[in-house]
Amino acid sequence: MSLIVQKYGGTSVGTPERIIHVARKIIETRDAGNQVIAVVSAMAGVTNRLIELAGQVTGEGKSPTEREMDVLLATGEQTTIALTAMALNAMGAKAVSLTGAQAGIETDGVHTKARISNISPAGVQALLDEGNIIILAGFQGKTADGKITTLGRGGSDLTAIAMAAAVDADLCQIFTDVDGVYTCDPRVVPEARKIPEISYDELLEMASSGTKVMQSRSVEFAKKFGVRFEVRSSLNNNPGTLVREETMSMESVVIRGVSLERAQAKVTIAGVPDLPGTAGKIFGAVAAANILVDMIVQNVSKTGITDISFTVHKDDVAKAEAALRPVLSELGEAVSLEAQDGIAKLSVVGIGMRSHSGVAAEMFQALSEAGINIEMISTSEIKITVTIAESQIDEAAQVTHEVFGLAG
Amino acid sequence: MSLIVQKYGGTSVGTPERIIHVARKIIETRDAGNQVIAVVSAMAGVTNRLIELAGQVTGEGKSPTEREMDVLLATGEQTTIALTAMALNAMGAKAVSLTGAQAGIETDGVHTKARISNISPAGVQALLDEGNIIILAGFQGKTADGKITTLGRGGSDLTAIAMAAAVDADLCQIFTDVDGVYTCDPRVVPEARKIPEISYDELLEMASSGTKVMQSRSVEFAKKFGVRFEVRSSLNNNPGTLVREETMSMESVVIRGVSLERAQAKVTIAGVPDLPGTAGKIFGAVAAANILVDMIVQNVSKTGITDISFTVHKDDVAKAEAALRPVLSELGEAVSLEAQDGIAKLSVVGIGMRSHSGVAAEMFQALSEAGINIEMISTSEIKITVTIAESQIDEAAQVTHEVFGLAG
Repeated sequence: MSLIVQKYGGTSVGTPERIIHVARKIIETRDAGNQVIAVVSAMAGVTNRLIELAGQVTGEGKSPTEREMDVLLATGEQTTIALTAMALNAMGAKAVSLTGAQAGIETDGVHTKARISNISPAGVQALLDEGNIIILAGFQGKTADGKITTLGRGGSDLTAIAMAAAVDADLCQIFTDVDGVYTCDPRVVPEARKIPEISYDELLEMASSGTKVMQSRSVEFAKKFGVRFEVRSSLNNNPGTLVREETMSMESVVIRGVSLERAQAKVTIAGVPDLPGTAGKIFGAVAAANILVDMIVQNVSKTGITDISFTVHKDDVAKAEAALRPVLSELGEAVSLEAQDGIAKLSVVGIGMRSHSGVAAEMFQALSEAGINIEMISTSEIKITVTIAESQIDEAAQVTHEVFGLAG
Repeated sequence: MSLIVQKYGGTSVGTPERIIHVARKIIETRDAGNQVIAVVSAMAGVTNRLIELAGQVTGEGKSPTEREMDVLLATGEQTTIALTAMALNAMGAKAVSLTGAQAGIETDGVHTKARISNISPAGVQALLDEGNIIILAGFQGKTADGKITTLGRGGSDLTAIAMAAAVDADLCQIFTDVDGVYTCDPRVVPEARKIPEISYDELLEMASSGTKVMQSRSVEFAKKFGVRFEVRSSLNNNPGTLVREETMSMESVVIRGVSLERAQAKVTIAGVPDLPGTAGKIFGAVAAANILVDMIVQNVSKTGITDISFTVHKDDVAKAEAALRPVLSELGEAVSLEAQDGIAKLSVVGIGMRSHSGVAAEMFQALSEAGINIEMISTSEIKITVTIAESQIDEAAQVTHEVFGLAG
């Protein structure tokens, strides 16, 4: 008998009918001879309604206390676990619900974005041993002294993966509204195929460059504890994408997928004195303004003066400029700042890159032949990212997908 | 500094605006120099919506599992505690929410109608000592092994009174939509006055005879642990009714109040052999059908044959008859059953009755003078109840209220 942890997101449990559908899928899994722990999110829309209520009692311009926000938001998943367990019971299955606290999920005390510090799975294990299906509230835990906490964005995925690690599950299935991870966004590249297996690192790099299947923290957690998980659709029975540690055979594929990200802007700070601490000052100021910086490119300086470029989301440009102005004047009179939007990022990702040379050349060549100009280039061990004009991103993705033979 | 436990029901916290109003009242209480624990119910309507959802996932003709019903319903109060604490925080007050489980309210495992078995108030006390206002979820607790339970009807009142006992509070205030306990229903007797002080026993007798202010179990709990509580309105600042152990001076008032209950029916079983065990059989059958029996009257038998009468709610008559048929045929051929509705009960209650004779005579005389016929009579140490025609109940209440000088 295998032990499977499943996770169903807010859309999958968004209505009573969908909860019944999820209950049927859980029973199918059990009937195939498995023990099941199903992690569920709040019903779609519930969290937003709770946040709205919080706004109404605190009034404009005031933020609800985070401790209480967690108590409030945790009711969303608690509602779903009870309803799902009831649905299973009504179908004759033995099922019990557990809140994060009841399941022994212990976190630090950082309300609204707590980190899991420990899981004591003895209670969960005992309930499994008694023949129960367990319906576990995602997204939540408790501190050592019993305060209710929530895990922040992607928290239910994290609950599933962390619990899978704690109970040493044979498989973790993340049910979502997509079929799996694709070689590229099928809306852009119709020939894109579902990827049967992908390594943690590849998924992380694809996530960081625009392919949003899961929050990176959950993937990182899975990597750290070696939890294999499958991303698949709750709407059909198609096999999804298995995410796992890398294998030798994975390297035979040079490029696993192509990611793209639109609505980027390039910020260039020119004439920067090439002195230790300069970059720290610049990016410290940007980080302090809570702006996510992505690609950072700096060329080798010959003259003691250099240019630093980076990308941000285009909506953050004004905020970045405001944050940088005071720093720039400190850096010297010759320093100038220029921002340009209408930019997109294109990335190719694959662990096979390590053992195959010439990947970058092949990509640049293909883009060039299609008349697409590359502005910035940045590489990691298993990823190459370029920025191009946003207007050319679809074509660029198609060309790249084609040149690496991803359509199969 | 006094420690006050307050309880606000579902209507008092039914909207964000009302929660803000309750938060203001709590701050007023604190500003008057008190420590405050405020027990809150689920926002009006929430519990019904949750029950509806439960019905939708379990399907027609099936009942949701009670264990899961408790997990579901407990989210109602958890939502309110978070919102109320947030509202207080936004007003600058130091407040924290606690679920029943977090507050150390331990119950037995009888889901949906658990009994409180123990309260460990150390955590609550520590939070009070740190200067916090505590917003406590009513109606809920946990078992020794961590299951979520709810206390059933009137559960939030019970939470307030039990917590008041556990922390040895100086006062417990039950805020509700009535001003307090009245000498009679003011819709029936416009001269009815609010009663400033009433004993536990008097309130219990009034509750059992139609004056619904609180569930009897909460009053019994308060009596057992000597918790004084005040029933008062959340809509104004009028003093309410203080419920407490009886005092000497209370006895100087003969009758504290007049209660009435409409929609009753009288069931008479005639020709019953006067043998040991007969009454047990009859009322065993009625109880097994889950019918609440109230007044039971049996006359002394001279012939070995007696009549037994009792009252039930008129909606329960058919069910009672069905439950009794098999028993009656066992009791003998001469036994007959007759049911009559259109009956109402009128009760006078007062601990002063013990030391004043002639109360019954005075009541019967007054009713007789008003042309009101008495059908059944039943008395306890501090209560006299009669049944009369339902059509005459208003007049009977007015006459009785008048004759005992309750208008003051």
